[in-house]
Amino acid sequence: MFVLGVDPGLVRCGYAILNRSDEGIAVETAGLIETPRDLPLSVRLLEIFDLLREVMQLCAISVVVVERVLFQSNVRTAMSVGQASGAALMAAAACSLPVVQMSSNEVKLALVGDGGASKLQLQTMVQRLLLLDQLPGPPDVVDAIGLAYCYLSVAPHQRELWPVT
Amino acid sequence: MFVLGVDPGLVRCGYAILNRSDEGIAVETAGLIETPRDLPLSVRLLEIFDLLREVMQLCAISVVVVERVLFQSNVRTAMSVGQASGAALMAAAACSLPVVQMSSNEVKLALVGDGGASKLQLQTMVQRLLLLDQLPGPPDVVDAIGLAYCYLSVAPHQRELWPVT
Repeated sequence: MFVLGVDPGLVRCGYAILNRSDEGIAVETAGLIETPRDLPLSVRLLEIFDLLREVMQLCAISVVVVERVLFQSNVRTAMSVGQASGAALMAAAACSLPVVQMSSNEVKLALVGDGGASKLQLQTMVQRLLLLDQLPGPPDVVDAIGLAYCYLSVAPHQRELWPVT
Repeated sequence: MFVLGVDPGLVRCGYAILNRSDEGIAVETAGLIETPRDLPLSVRLLEIFDLLREVMQLCAISVVVVERVLFQSNVRTAMSVGQASGAALMAAAACSLPVVQMSSNEVKLALVGDGGASKLQLQTMVQRLLLLDQLPGPPDVVDAIGLAYCYLSVAPHQRELWPVT
């Protein structure tokens, strides 16, 4: 079962496809979509949409897990992150894939046991869980891995925690 | 010169194409995109994107004016309005059209002379400016008309007030 995690962002959008097989959970592919700051906002959002649709066609993905945007202190950032998350949702709909949204705190709570865990704690736990040789990065990709891992690691009946949006 | 105004919203998204010719400014077409609340968010955003792209192909539009989302008291609404505005921006980029963003206050200030004008005041002013037989509505469409009118009514050099985003 392939699950795509997306940590949306206008400047950096992390994504990761994880596969759950009989041998366990492993990263199939992961990367970062970066859009240049000198392009118009409209073009940057469309680029995120287009590139995520390409990612969604790499393998037979069952679910797209998008980080739920919570309001931050920086109002301008919150809006652009929200719009980037909208682009991710739309890409999933364009590929007829169901979407679940999950907050960063939910992922940290599930994987580290502390909703307020640091980025380093999450990186360290993702390294252990996926038996990686080195600390994974950058943070946007680690967050995307965390989202997909979180969904794949719970029992199917527990997935109702995150309704399709 | 055709200009499309869009008042983005997840439940109701108003749009209006205005034309400025030698005879003045007139509404070419206007309408409302409504997406059912029982559909997934991802599908609703994609529907707004698809339908706005269709609207953008109705005539040779020069600029798309999208209402700039300001943060409201209702955090949930602000996020979905932001995502709907992202869908409008992306539709413009998909049609290779430049976008300017303008706040509701800027429109009211320019047309009514008061940034805090009521919906009725804006409706009344739009009716007068466009010489309409009756009060235009619904409010989302009036806002979209106001956005496009505002852009068309200022002198070209003043349009730098609203940089392309």
